[in-house]
Amino acid sequence: MKKPAPKNYSKLSLDKHLKLGGKLTVASKFKLTNKDDLSIAYTPGVAAVCMEIAKNKKQASKLTLKKNTVAVVSDGSAVLGLGNIGGYAAIPVMEGKSVLMKHFANVDAFPICLNTQDTEEIINIIKNLEPVFGGINLEDISAPRCFEIEERLKEELNIPVMHDDQWGAAVVTLAGLINSLKVVNKKMDDLKIVVSGVGAAGIATIKLIKSYAPNCSIYALDSKGIISITRDRLNDISSEKRSLVVERIVEGDLDGDLSVALNDVDVFIGLSKPNILTIEHIKLMKTNPIIFGLANPTPEISFENSKKAKIAIFATGRSDYPNQINNSLFFPGFWRGMLDRQMIGKGSKYDMKTLHKVAVAIAKMVNPKKDRILPSTLDKKVHSLVAKIITSI
Amino acid sequence: MKKPAPKNYSKLSLDKHLKLGGKLTVASKFKLTNKDDLSIAYTPGVAAVCMEIAKNKKQASKLTLKKNTVAVVSDGSAVLGLGNIGGYAAIPVMEGKSVLMKHFANVDAFPICLNTQDTEEIINIIKNLEPVFGGINLEDISAPRCFEIEERLKEELNIPVMHDDQWGAAVVTLAGLINSLKVVNKKMDDLKIVVSGVGAAGIATIKLIKSYAPNCSIYALDSKGIISITRDRLNDISSEKRSLVVERIVEGDLDGDLSVALNDVDVFIGLSKPNILTIEHIKLMKTNPIIFGLANPTPEISFENSKKAKIAIFATGRSDYPNQINNSLFFPGFWRGMLDRQMIGKGSKYDMKTLHKVAVAIAKMVNPKKDRILPSTLDKKVHSLVAKIITSI
Repeated sequence: MKKPAPKNYSKLSLDKHLKLGGKLTVASKFKLTNKDDLSIAYTPGVAAVCMEIAKNKKQASKLTLKKNTVAVVSDGSAVLGLGNIGGYAAIPVMEGKSVLMKHFANVDAFPICLNTQDTEEIINIIKNLEPVFGGINLEDISAPRCFEIEERLKEELNIPVMHDDQWGAAVVTLAGLINSLKVVNKKMDDLKIVVSGVGAAGIATIKLIKSYAPNCSIYALDSKGIISITRDRLNDISSEKRSLVVERIVEGDLDGDLSVALNDVDVFIGLSKPNILTIEHIKLMKTNPIIFGLANPTPEISFENSKKAKIAIFATGRSDYPNQINNSLFFPGFWRGMLDRQMIGKGSKYDMKTLHKVAVAIAKMVNPKKDRILPSTLDKKVHSLVAKIITSI
Repeated sequence: MKKPAPKNYSKLSLDKHLKLGGKLTVASKFKLTNKDDLSIAYTPGVAAVCMEIAKNKKQASKLTLKKNTVAVVSDGSAVLGLGNIGGYAAIPVMEGKSVLMKHFANVDAFPICLNTQDTEEIINIIKNLEPVFGGINLEDISAPRCFEIEERLKEELNIPVMHDDQWGAAVVTLAGLINSLKVVNKKMDDLKIVVSGVGAAGIATIKLIKSYAPNCSIYALDSKGIISITRDRLNDISSEKRSLVVERIVEGDLDGDLSVALNDVDVFIGLSKPNILTIEHIKLMKTNPIIFGLANPTPEISFENSKKAKIAIFATGRSDYPNQINNSLFFPGFWRGMLDRQMIGKGSKYDMKTLHKVAVAIAKMVNPKKDRILPSTLDKKVHSLVAKIITSI
């Protein structure tokens, strides 16, 4: 097993980013070796291409980079587990997402990192950038603003919109959960689950799991404790969290902290903060507990402590530990599929059932074991499978 | 000589754009072959890069694509000679500019084609896109909005801003004029010049020539005729045009149309509309007239008619005719130079004298002849020379 040495990767990563000046570059598909090439790529030939699009702007999806290009948009308000670090500091992550999309699914993605965190401004900017892009991948935008931004853009744009922190995290977590249950021989419908973190990823993951297995019980915690009816009455929670209780998506009858919530549950899913889960906490859970510590880059419980506790399945968001649960299994194939849909005249809508199908298909790709509940992101078959499902619906 | 067959290039261009799905693609500088690669390009290693920029956002210019990336921003309001065709139809031109920047100066340029033509909205969007880009190349934005947009962004951004239709056109036109005069053995200071078209390119060209040769006489025409004191009194003209008269940059004592203006002048510079110049018009000019028909793709006088008139030097904006006067001799090297300046801690300011230097240097690259007043855009030496001058100032 590789040694978990985050410091090492920090230095390697810094050095390489500095040496290469970032990760992304732009390349031309047209050669420019003589005047004829110039006349075809640029003036005068290009005028005919412009006029074709002026007549019918849908032609931009066939004649320009719009055909294969997705914007990776962030305001840097909720980056990895680093928090609100702003548009500048978010660039390396958005470049990383773009590199993954290119490598795994041949999607041309470009980072759009914004200097504003104003919801209306963000919506307006993205609407006005619609011409060049074939899709909008929202990334690392904090809750609850991310919900309104995604919702509004889905309504107002003609291209697909997907907030990866919500749906990428949710799909891959569900896939990981499906396979973990096979290893410990438990059933989804009997399950008690604690989700720590009720931001973008937490809420989407709760909704996706509950819609997949309506009889499971989910307890959700934010930094103040369990989301419950009591807290609802106290107006202590946002409308998004409240609706989890009101719509009975989470169990609302329990008050207390993580220790209370963890009593006798099967699964802990952390989409929250580093090192909040202790070995003592895990002792409160049922036998064969499943722990997903998905705060990134530092999980809810350290790798070392996870070895000391009696855990059946331990997964994180990191590439350098076993059992990586990371959006990167989802978003490259999702966008390949969405761009392909548009080429065959299909729309840009997707729903919970679509995402269930994708999660089940990702899970089916491996014969799950304790240290291998999911396929590797490096396996390009995953991404083409995801693309195929998205294209087929 | 190549036959001028625009129809042919139109078809070749349309076919190639359709076959390849646009001209631009995104590529990764990082390889992703194993988990270590993922840990360095993405999580967990990337967090260290983010935190470095969070501490000091200037580090984004060293650690991310911002180091070498320029936005080619247009609202599609004044594209080539095609007019206001909008953000979608402008994409092929902006992709073309990006391809040229990459090929000739290794600048990573990305088209940002906007769905709005509102001045304030455009300024606000570009300000909020500042994190990812190392420069803003404004393109094909109609006058007079382009003046305010360029001015405001120059003040409010920390990265260089350049409206290529203004300064690219002006620099290359001045370079072409300097060399044309060598061929016909005339002097800049004795010159009478007519500039047809007082949009972005026209005004910048007039200002650049007049600042280079203060004793020459310039007559400027818009679609209503000569810009003059009389018209100023009638409030018939915009503030930008008026200031040309008030500041005595153009001769303001003549009223009338193109026939009046052309009497006894040496040079016609068209930055206006196709086919407005006739063989009869040219007969009004001095002997050895110099004609720059820079409306693109269809010049102010057709290539066929230009052969019938007695013209000493005929130049257009097209790649498929001799004597191409096109911004593409300027903007790739300009941006290479500006990005390089930032790497050596130099600022982003440039002035008329900078642009004079560049024009003179471009002119000096050839021993001018009737059919070769300027170097070819395909000659990479031009672009590295321009970059060198920009870097050195």
